[in-house]
Amino acid sequence: MATPKFKEMERAYGFDEVAIVPGDVTVNPDQTDTSFYVGNITLKIPIFASAMDGVVDPKMAIELSKLGCLGVLNLDGVWSRYENADEILTQIANASDKDVTALLQKIYTSPIKENLIGKCVETIKKAGAVCAVSLIPATAKKLAPIAQEAGADILVIQSTVTTARHISKSYHGLVFSELIQSVKMPVIVGNTVSYSASLELMRAGIDGLLVGIGPGAACTTREVLGIGVPQVTATINCAAARNAYHKETGKYVNIITDGGIRIGSDLTKCFASGADAVMIGSPMAQAFEAPGKGCHWGMANPHPELPRGTRIRVGTKASLKQILFGPTSVTNGSENFVGALRTAMGVCGAMTIKDMQKAKMVIAPSIKTEGKYFQAMQAFSV
Amino acid sequence: MATPKFKEMERAYGFDEVAIVPGDVTVNPDQTDTSFYVGNITLKIPIFASAMDGVVDPKMAIELSKLGCLGVLNLDGVWSRYENADEILTQIANASDKDVTALLQKIYTSPIKENLIGKCVETIKKAGAVCAVSLIPATAKKLAPIAQEAGADILVIQSTVTTARHISKSYHGLVFSELIQSVKMPVIVGNTVSYSASLELMRAGIDGLLVGIGPGAACTTREVLGIGVPQVTATINCAAARNAYHKETGKYVNIITDGGIRIGSDLTKCFASGADAVMIGSPMAQAFEAPGKGCHWGMANPHPELPRGTRIRVGTKASLKQILFGPTSVTNGSENFVGALRTAMGVCGAMTIKDMQKAKMVIAPSIKTEGKYFQAMQAFSV
Amino acid sequence: MATPKFKEMERAYGFDEVAIVPGDVTVNPDQTDTSFYVGNITLKIPIFASAMDGVVDPKMAIELSKLGCLGVLNLDGVWSRYENADEILTQIANASDKDVTALLQKIYTSPIKENLIGKCVETIKKAGAVCAVSLIPATAKKLAPIAQEAGADILVIQSTVTTARHISKSYHGLVFSELIQSVKMPVIVGNTVSYSASLELMRAGIDGLLVGIGPGAACTTREVLGIGVPQVTATINCAAARNAYHKETGKYVNIITDGGIRIGSDLTKCFASGADAVMIGSPMAQAFEAPGKGCHWGMANPHPELPRGTRIRVGTKASLKQILFGPTSVTNGSENFVGALRTAMGVCGAMTIKDMQKAKMVIAPSIKTEGKYFQAMQAFSV
Amino acid sequence: MATPKFKEMERAYGFDEVAIVPGDVTVNPDQTDTSFYVGNITLKIPIFASAMDGVVDPKMAIELSKLGCLGVLNLDGVWSRYENADEILTQIANASDKDVTALLQKIYTSPIKENLIGKCVETIKKAGAVCAVSLIPATAKKLAPIAQEAGADILVIQSTVTTARHISKSYHGLVFSELIQSVKMPVIVGNTVSYSASLELMRAGIDGLLVGIGPGAACTTREVLGIGVPQVTATINCAAARNAYHKETGKYVNIITDGGIRIGSDLTKCFASGADAVMIGSPMAQAFEAPGKGCHWGMANPHPELPRGTRIRVGTKASLKQILFGPTSVTNGSENFVGALRTAMGVCGAMTIKDMQKAKMVIAPSIKTEGKYFQAMQAFSV
Repeated sequence: MATPKFKEMERAYGFDEVAIVPGDVTVNPDQTDTSFYVGNITLKIPIFASAMDGVVDPKMAIELSKLGCLGVLNLDGVWSRYENADEILTQIANASDKDVTALLQKIYTSPIKENLIGKCVETIKKAGAVCAVSLIPATAKKLAPIAQEAGADILVIQSTVTTARHISKSYHGLVFSELIQSVKMPVIVGNTVSYSASLELMRAGIDGLLVGIGPGAACTTREVLGIGVPQVTATINCAAARNAYHKETGKYVNIITDGGIRIGSDLTKCFASGADAVMIGSPMAQAFEAPGKGCHWGMANPHPELPRGTRIRVGTKASLKQILFGPTSVTNGSENFVGALRTAMGVCGAMTIKDMQKAKMVIAPSIKTEGKYFQAMQAFSV
Repeated sequence: MATPKFKEMERAYGFDEVAIVPGDVTVNPDQTDTSFYVGNITLKIPIFASAMDGVVDPKMAIELSKLGCLGVLNLDGVWSRYENADEILTQIANASDKDVTALLQKIYTSPIKENLIGKCVETIKKAGAVCAVSLIPATAKKLAPIAQEAGADILVIQSTVTTARHISKSYHGLVFSELIQSVKMPVIVGNTVSYSASLELMRAGIDGLLVGIGPGAACTTREVLGIGVPQVTATINCAAARNAYHKETGKYVNIITDGGIRIGSDLTKCFASGADAVMIGSPMAQAFEAPGKGCHWGMANPHPELPRGTRIRVGTKASLKQILFGPTSVTNGSENFVGALRTAMGVCGAMTIKDMQKAKMVIAPSIKTEGKYFQAMQAFSV
Repeated sequence: MATPKFKEMERAYGFDEVAIVPGDVTVNPDQTDTSFYVGNITLKIPIFASAMDGVVDPKMAIELSKLGCLGVLNLDGVWSRYENADEILTQIANASDKDVTALLQKIYTSPIKENLIGKCVETIKKAGAVCAVSLIPATAKKLAPIAQEAGADILVIQSTVTTARHISKSYHGLVFSELIQSVKMPVIVGNTVSYSASLELMRAGIDGLLVGIGPGAACTTREVLGIGVPQVTATINCAAARNAYHKETGKYVNIITDGGIRIGSDLTKCFASGADAVMIGSPMAQAFEAPGKGCHWGMANPHPELPRGTRIRVGTKASLKQILFGPTSVTNGSENFVGALRTAMGVCGAMTIKDMQKAKMVIAPSIKTEGKYFQAMQAFSV
Repeated sequence: MATPKFKEMERAYGFDEVAIVPGDVTVNPDQTDTSFYVGNITLKIPIFASAMDGVVDPKMAIELSKLGCLGVLNLDGVWSRYENADEILTQIANASDKDVTALLQKIYTSPIKENLIGKCVETIKKAGAVCAVSLIPATAKKLAPIAQEAGADILVIQSTVTTARHISKSYHGLVFSELIQSVKMPVIVGNTVSYSASLELMRAGIDGLLVGIGPGAACTTREVLGIGVPQVTATINCAAARNAYHKETGKYVNIITDGGIRIGSDLTKCFASGADAVMIGSPMAQAFEAPGKGCHWGMANPHPELPRGTRIRVGTKASLKQILFGPTSVTNGSENFVGALRTAMGVCGAMTIKDMQKAKMVIAPSIKTEGKYFQAMQAFSV
């Protein structure tokens, strides 16, 4: 007798479980075009830096814009709470592993100062950079107009899990369609991982979707809550929603894979899974220019009662430019992300990001299992 | 030529192999209702503490009841065998790893004293707490009436593997339907893992079913016997039986997943797999209030000839209240279990436990594989 | 375009990848019958000790027979090559890891002395024990009559891979049907792993089949040759052939799973996979009575040009009786194999080995993944 | 609602995930024929040494030819750039792990000297050996005629990923069909991993195909680019193309699996996957005769901006003859590759390599999982 099924589960895949298959045609990397388009803004490089206090401050945002990327400034973080944000960041960097979560819990209870929002945005705009800012759903309605007035170009609304419908006693849930009509800039919303939730958010009028729940290095959502979908499958799901919505309405909503990207191969797999851009934290935090002094952490970390993240100490290792564009003598994929993307596009015969989305992938768990005997051989032969 | 099949095997899944997918609607955690109902008893929190001597004594049972949970007192354990049970627990805690199994084997040969059963039950009831007690099938018929007379509210009949039909030369097997008719309180029976065995037990008239063979930290049934089904699949199987039986008869039998739950995500996955409640040992044993002095062990451990368990030394780390409700600065999911459940219910849009049972899950092996490069990057960059 | 397939591959499973599901009925362990039948011989316990020089000598064979098991004496080993076999075993036990393979290669070039064969068999028979002896295909035709004349009860013909048809220039391949007609005792042949090769061997008239290529602790066939099928699938394949052959001819050929069995759960899974008996090496080698002085090795190890095995140092830990029947205070399944079998049969409701062959199994990789967080929790709490 | 699929992925397998099933007939190893044929050249042993500077120099090529194998000399490497190539190799061997990639990047910018090409080829031919040389696509058109004039027998065109169609602004892509018509020797091209790309290359007129992207010990393409298909599946894909092309045209194009082969079982699995020959690096680099002084590295390593490889220090351990043909006392499969191949062919009943291509394989992850308890048992018993 076959057991009646209470629940069916499909297999979901992460970066380490897949590999990209080269194409039947190859292209020279220097002929590839990696542009990303949202509203009337074009980025030459489809890479966002995460809206984390250890990753993006106004200076970093300016630097990233010069290089063709986008830094998203967290408007619920230390830069809109403290005049002396840099000192606060030093405190966090210096705290012990044991004490840091309690410290973060305390730091993020200080109120947001609206004047600091304007100041940050203006600093970025004055430098001629594209200014992207992030808010959580609970503060978006109130603070988005301030950011817009100060000249922000792109609005990101972000929480661990965001849906078009939220039920709450304590506050009137954010209605995305209303917010989108009230602001003049492109709105990117996240995070999400499923086809149906993505489709609902797209119908609210958003311009981009952040994909990823649980995968980031600074995030422990999967341990604490059990919630999460690995990034390859999450991106594939949301890209399917994008294509369905595009077919239905003619509007193209960008898919931005956010979280868990450590090395070049993680990034190239995002695009082969259907992403239009990626958002990265850890690799950016390792830049000399990053504000975190070698540390970063997520906004779920300072939660007062159920922190779901850790401060990650990544150290600093190279200039932002070298991390993004090389040249490098590092061979593990942690530098020259753009070079890796262009080279991967080349071997897949992809002229554009949209071509790269069509690259074939196989399920091929774990990198270098085939080399594992080498260690043993080495041990007895040297 | 295709080989004729001697045996087909289906894949079974454990906690670390699945993840919960957020819903299309989200709910504020403070609006969720986690109640559990059995007979005319309601628990605000659907968490049982295991019927293990290191986990529940009369004081712990009282404390748990105050917090909305349920502590199950083991009536085949030290509290019904020894006047000086606390001294016995100290001996166990102080024994070396090498000697402890032999010590346990000796301690559990001392006979059960019926007067101690009454004394324990009365202590719990006098404090106004809900009193749940457990017995093994071989002693249930004789001792259940004593517990009932003393005022017990819930009877748990538990052995490693329990079925409705047991063949024995040495004693007349327990007939569950007879026992259930003879006692006035709800009867919860276990453990089991399959659809068909669950359905037979339900037909005997039980009110709840304990699900789980092999997964607990203090249990080595899978090593010794090869018997066991991982908890996600086991819960899914038994929940299917519950629904089939409910449809057939209109009676709802509670499914309580028992064993292997270490952190918040394990617990939330039980409910998404179909559980109505969970039974946890190790996390409870870590409470300052637990009787085991930082240790716990199962009833299969003292088996005189084939012990199938080990004493686990977990240490004590926080108050029961903090382990259950937080607040916490621990980010690995081992504190604030109820907060984790409510937050997970929130992101799944689940108002009640029954809603949470409908959450979607994916097969997504191993937490944080996506972060594994981080260690290496850190090594050469700091 | 779907790629044309050059080769299809099915998934094969080993012990650590499956688990046994309890039955709908349970039986008291003391009511189970574990008998094994071959020819007119009955073993109370369906366990063979491997035909390895570190595992079985005449004394060990006698001891095993007294306990209801079967020890198979290797007639191509040291006992038929050296008068002072015990001294040779001491040399092997004392050799360093670096030198031992070269030493084994040398020891096994010494010629077989026919008079020693007779002497060994007579010693065993004189003690009233069942005498089983093993030969490789190349020597079977010449030496089997000597063993038979001396009174051997069971003949085992064993090499790494044995088929009914072998093509060789250097010697006329052994024709099993001829050999079987010429000897009066039951003939057990191996090793094999597939349905079709098993069926051919059965048609040659054999009475039992040894199943297992590659899994043993002392065997490196999978590393060196890439040849092997994990034991659960191998046993299932060969049991299917047994049932097909039985249906076709009415003759029942025993399936004996040989290799890779370390603990109780490995053994119980063999029977649930369809075995009639098991052959074990490492656990037997750990008995005080074993001839290997805490070591064992396979016959593929001394191969002069391509050794495919290693000497395994297992130490000695308990009496043979305790390893087989307990009682024990060890909780990892490495003692009381018969107790484990009877208990597993009990929870599966199996009265006989043939009942146990019908137990349900699930694919459930890796024991105790659900306990892995425990280590971490322990680390920061004690 | 089933989610619309944006992308389907098939499972791909590597060496450690499969095992070969013995046949129904067995053959004595000494009766097997391992010959490989390309053009009018026959190799008795179907093993190529990789075109890596640490693996093949003219002396090594001569030695390999004497033993029946083929050494491919890299004409884009140090031997065609430096008069004092041996000194350069010493510098590389002596460089620290930290500095070596930068050193390699520098060394490989020195220009190729055409006279050195002729000199190398003539040295090899003068010794009576078969001379195989490799070039990258960008230099092939110019340098292949020089090698041919000097007497080369086989031309290998190799880059990380090679397709029949390459799009480039900076140089007119190599047209394989033109090159093949202009040279008189067999042309082997690679690397590739897919059915369709293989078929296109075959239609250009090639005589052999190198299969493998990402698997080698000295290669980090999978980490850096995310590109690669594990070798078993890659070989199966390309063998399917070979058979389809053979059926279509009557021409047989050899499949040579290249990369990731460490031990005997890796090599035997290549043939069971459909290979006609294999190309190996690490095991060859361990020979006393290898030019790398115990080191080797790939041509993707010195890439000036995005190095995708590492120098691997393997040490030297035995003579080339012993590594290939034994005898050995090493039991882990890292010596006597030809013995392993012949023995595996024997147990599969394969008289020739084409027979071995028909051997059955199963998916059977990870070698020796069944032995893992042994360590624990050993720990407490010795």
